[in-house]
Amino acid sequence: MKNQKQTSPTVPSADGVWEALRLVPGLSHPDVPLADDALATVVVERGVVRWVGPGHALPPAHATLPRFAGQGALTTPGLVDCHTHLVYGGQRANEFALRLAGASYEEVARAGGGIVSSVRATREASEDELFALALPRLQALLDEGVCAIEIKSGYGLALEHERKQLRVARRLGEALGVTVRTTFLGAHALPPEYAGRSAAYTELVCKEMLPALAAEGLVDAVDVFCERIAFTLAETEQVFQAAQKLGIPVKLHAEQLSDMGGSALAARYGALSCDHIEHLSPTGIAAMKAAGTVAVLLPGAYYTLRDTQLPPIQQLRDAGVPMAVSTDHNPGTSPCLSLLLMANMACTLFRLTVPEALAGITSHAARALGLQDSHGLIAAGRPANFVLWRLREAAELAYWLGQKPDCTIVRQGQVVRNTLAIQPQGTRHGA
Amino acid sequence: MKNQKQTSPTVPSADGVWEALRLVPGLSHPDVPLADDALATVVVERGVVRWVGPGHALPPAHATLPRFAGQGALTTPGLVDCHTHLVYGGQRANEFALRLAGASYEEVARAGGGIVSSVRATREASEDELFALALPRLQALLDEGVCAIEIKSGYGLALEHERKQLRVARRLGEALGVTVRTTFLGAHALPPEYAGRSAAYTELVCKEMLPALAAEGLVDAVDVFCERIAFTLAETEQVFQAAQKLGIPVKLHAEQLSDMGGSALAARYGALSCDHIEHLSPTGIAAMKAAGTVAVLLPGAYYTLRDTQLPPIQQLRDAGVPMAVSTDHNPGTSPCLSLLLMANMACTLFRLTVPEALAGITSHAARALGLQDSHGLIAAGRPANFVLWRLREAAELAYWLGQKPDCTIVRQGQVVRNTLAIQPQGTRHGA
Ligand SMILES: [Zn+2]
Ligand SMILES: [Zn+2]
Repeated sequence: MKNQKQTSPTVPSADGVWEALRLVPGLSHPDVPLADDALATVVVERGVVRWVGPGHALPPAHATLPRFAGQGALTTPGLVDCHTHLVYGGQRANEFALRLAGASYEEVARAGGGIVSSVRATREASEDELFALALPRLQALLDEGVCAIEIKSGYGLALEHERKQLRVARRLGEALGVTVRTTFLGAHALPPEYAGRSAAYTELVCKEMLPALAAEGLVDAVDVFCERIAFTLAETEQVFQAAQKLGIPVKLHAEQLSDMGGSALAARYGALSCDHIEHLSPTGIAAMKAAGTVAVLLPGAYYTLRDTQLPPIQQLRDAGVPMAVSTDHNPGTSPCLSLLLMANMACTLFRLTVPEALAGITSHAARALGLQDSHGLIAAGRPANFVLWRLREAAELAYWLGQKPDCTIVRQGQVVRNTLAIQPQGTRHGA
Repeated sequence: MKNQKQTSPTVPSADGVWEALRLVPGLSHPDVPLADDALATVVVERGVVRWVGPGHALPPAHATLPRFAGQGALTTPGLVDCHTHLVYGGQRANEFALRLAGASYEEVARAGGGIVSSVRATREASEDELFALALPRLQALLDEGVCAIEIKSGYGLALEHERKQLRVARRLGEALGVTVRTTFLGAHALPPEYAGRSAAYTELVCKEMLPALAAEGLVDAVDVFCERIAFTLAETEQVFQAAQKLGIPVKLHAEQLSDMGGSALAARYGALSCDHIEHLSPTGIAAMKAAGTVAVLLPGAYYTLRDTQLPPIQQLRDAGVPMAVSTDHNPGTSPCLSLLLMANMACTLFRLTVPEALAGITSHAARALGLQDSHGLIAAGRPANFVLWRLREAAELAYWLGQKPDCTIVRQGQVVRNTLAIQPQGTRHGA
């Protein structure tokens, strides 16, 4: 696991004029044509993008700021990873090995495997331990240009442990200077002590856990795992009602293993996103379109589970439902540390086009988190989150398999990683 | 693409006593049990491993050497990537994007895509240009612990251009201090100027190209793409005979798209390896077993092509044919920059066990290159090539998806990357 501090030559502030950038069509406002004589300029002041346009049109007022020579670098918005379970105790490499060696599910369970093992390890870990475990995982994602990330609870399954997970998520955001959206997923699985009593546990989630955690400011959204092996449609709706009462937006793990009708339900509650959706029906698609709900595709889980049921990409495309792509980082079905690899898998396995995959890890992912006005696009008025890549073509972001491209990352107005070694060059007309 | 120099804190020489290592069972000689009180020690002198054993048994003669505190780090041999086409002009991200956008093969060809485009770009590039293009690709693989790699020609398809590719492969090995095995793959595809004249081209390969390049010391092995869309079985045998006459070992791109019987033929010529082998027959397996030929699995190409025909893993396992795993790095069907990702794919897609996958990227991969006496195992008498990982369990090498784990790499007796920041600590009994 990564545990590397950001020791690249750093420039604390990104304030200045970023010149000679090749912006990717569709991922900036305005779209600056890629013609060589019209490379784009982005002006950052006090951590916020103030102006985007062709270099020759730079307003004179900005001309005295420090300059950063982009040298034609391909430039995208900061990436957004909109679905992760990043905070948990332990990991499940041993279970991975056991399954490959032919162990049955029972044998794996006897050896302490399965989601129960992650719940146990998460409950046993202290907040500091969970923080230390999640930090290098988060750093690995950030090193690839992620500037906003969702982190779900759901391995605590009891108030104090769900709180611990969400507090760690918040601390991670503060420690690393990255936008973290916390999602309460108390209804992820039935905890062992509630075996056979899912109604009672759902009630606990709705009446105690969610109100308490929301009151502590730990809940940006509420999620449920709606599936035969998890929570029913009726239980899902109970949780959504509790969230609605608190004015908190919802999202849903929906139609991963079967068509439960969860997506249509979620859309009725104005859900930010429905995620997985391999078995999504035309009814669900129409409901999502009408509600403006984002379809979050999770090819890492599809791949790891060797699923063969593809999500209905062409129908989503035809309906105009925005598609996001995420790591679904979790220790059981997607121990994934690379959002760019997910872009590749979205193209290769799900046949997204390259522009769809790139929107999926930027603008549409931002929308899935309710961050469409601040993230996922390079535009005036937004916090400065963008990445300069040592790549020739935008398609290379999805084309290479298992890459960690060199890049210079501006996150929250700071140059936090600078492999391209771009330094401010004084002012345009001054020293 | 990577273009980062190795700027981690480096220690020029790895000579000394590497203490408190957790060696992975099966990948060292002797196998040192993993019990905490019996962590292994590896002694390196003049770039060569002199002794391997439990720390408490360290011979007194070595006790005065500088110490490197392994602190219980999981330690494997340097990785071996035994099948790559790493040296080529251009890349094919645009073709990747076009195909996803629905372009037909004809349209891709008209847009300059396909293998022909790589041949054209390779021919047009100078030796220095090819070197500069391949360098960051190679560096990305080396940063993950690769200490020996095979690089094939096959995008030149004319004497001067095949020579250029192989010379670049040699230069890369010298420049980065890594063992490079060159493979002449003149019979990769029919060059455009020989369209319809495969007999004449095969003759050119056997009579002119191979002898000339072998005389220049550029050919460690000879390979052929034996397939309906490439070279016939008879043409393959012609090339093998030419190689045999020169005393050069052979290997084969075999049974990827159909069962051509290439593996059995290759085994008759004592081939080092047969690679791809999705359509390998029981006859082929038996022949490979008898000849000691390694089965090289290339899950990156299987994945990228969305192949559904799995190689006959269980039959290879039952027959005791050693299985290697490689990136098959190439711009068309496997633009792969991570051998660890291939270990994950070998497990996930091909159901290799974790020990099989780890042998596949170390000892069996070394055997596929004829390097079984010098690489792929930590043992006395071999050049010091090993990697200390910031990982708890060996299974994590295959478990995480898209990881770039922190590690300290000893390659050819040098500490070439040192993310774990391990420094020599004077002598055991001295200062
Ligand atoms: Zn999930
Ligand atoms: Zn190949």
